Amino acid sequence: MTVTQERPAINGVDVPTLFATLDAVKGQPEIADFKFRATNRWVSGVQSRSTYTGFYGAMQELEHAHATEVVSDHPAVLVGQDQGPAAVEYLLHAIAACLTSGIGNIASARGVELHSVSSTVEGDINLLGILGLAPEGAGVRNGYEQIKVTFHIDGDADEETLRGIVEQSRRRSAVYDALTNPTPVVIDVVVADQ
Amino acid sequence: MTVTQERPAINGVDVPTLFATLDAVKGQPEIADFKFRATNRWVSGVQSRSTYTGFYGAMQELEHAHATEVVSDHPAVLVGQDQGPAAVEYLLHAIAACLTSGIGNIASARGVELHSVSSTVEGDINLLGILGLAPEGAGVRNGYEQIKVTFHIDGDADEETLRGIVEQSRRRSAVYDALTNPTPVVIDVVVADQ
Repeated sequence: MTVTQERPAINGVDVPTLFATLDAVKGQPEIADFKFRATNRWVSGVQSRSTYTGFYGAMQELEHAHATEVVSDHPAVLVGQDQGPAAVEYLLHAIAACLTSGIGNIASARGVELHSVSSTVEGDINLLGILGLAPEGAGVRNGYEQIKVTFHIDGDADEETLRGIVEQSRRRSAVYDALTNPTPVVIDVVVADQ
Repeated sequence: MTVTQERPAINGVDVPTLFATLDAVKGQPEIADFKFRATNRWVSGVQSRSTYTGFYGAMQELEHAHATEVVSDHPAVLVGQDQGPAAVEYLLHAIAACLTSGIGNIASARGVELHSVSSTVEGDINLLGILGLAPEGAGVRNGYEQIKVTFHIDGDADEETLRGIVEQSRRRSAVYDALTNPTPVVIDVVVADQ
């Protein structure tokens, strides 16, 4: 702990508060039960917008500091108005941002100063799947065949240490798990009275 | 096809162009090979930002009509600055937006006028997983235990027809597949020269 006490706000991470949070959860594991939420509204065509306002966590309803709205559409080549990235493109942000937040926390907990972390993400998808045009038995799925994340990382540590931080982030990543392992998705439909 | 020819732009969907696109893909399946991309940059702490500019599809490099930047952070209770939703919250937008875009297209292709489509999405997550505090063998995962999407749909069709549109959207959803089935994620790391 010596290192973290000497550099409490390394990388913009308040390390003492991070460790205090871990201690609090150890003492009362119910704190760790979270429910994240979004509300989506269809606009027109294939465009929709989601709003994030609140969530449940630490045994209470909480609000984000400010509401965020994000928009999805299709590009013109996929018969949309291109008012925003396609839904499937948001998965690419999610995986990059999740791994990067882990890198920020883990590097800080280990007393490693980061200079820069950037990544490019590419997802290969064969749209024959969602278009319903894949030949029978061709094994074409609806989603990404593969997502590749390439990190460029620069920090005050040797290569092995920096690689170890990325690897630990992968091991603890919520989005990496949600994508690489099956996540149950339940869909309920309420139809308006005619 | 009679219905779609009578109502070419139902729900804001250009149905003749949608069917023409399907025909084009049938004639040349390589058109359906897409690569979506995002570039992410760590800002500070657990905050990062992703930019979407271009993608590959229809056998060419294409640009979005405008670049989009999205931001992720952690809320204060998770030791962030709350400059935006957490990475894992973007998965909730992705599933809602993907299903909703499918509803828009499928309803239009079937000649059903939609009055409104909205959804709430909730993801249950036990943060003991990502915090590394889950008891051995407790089966706590890093990602969501479950995501629940609740649609409210109103349109010029009976309940069975509207439910059928949502169900067909689920069957053809890229994000539904990416979440409910394993998606390979490859992570490469390039470490800057010291």
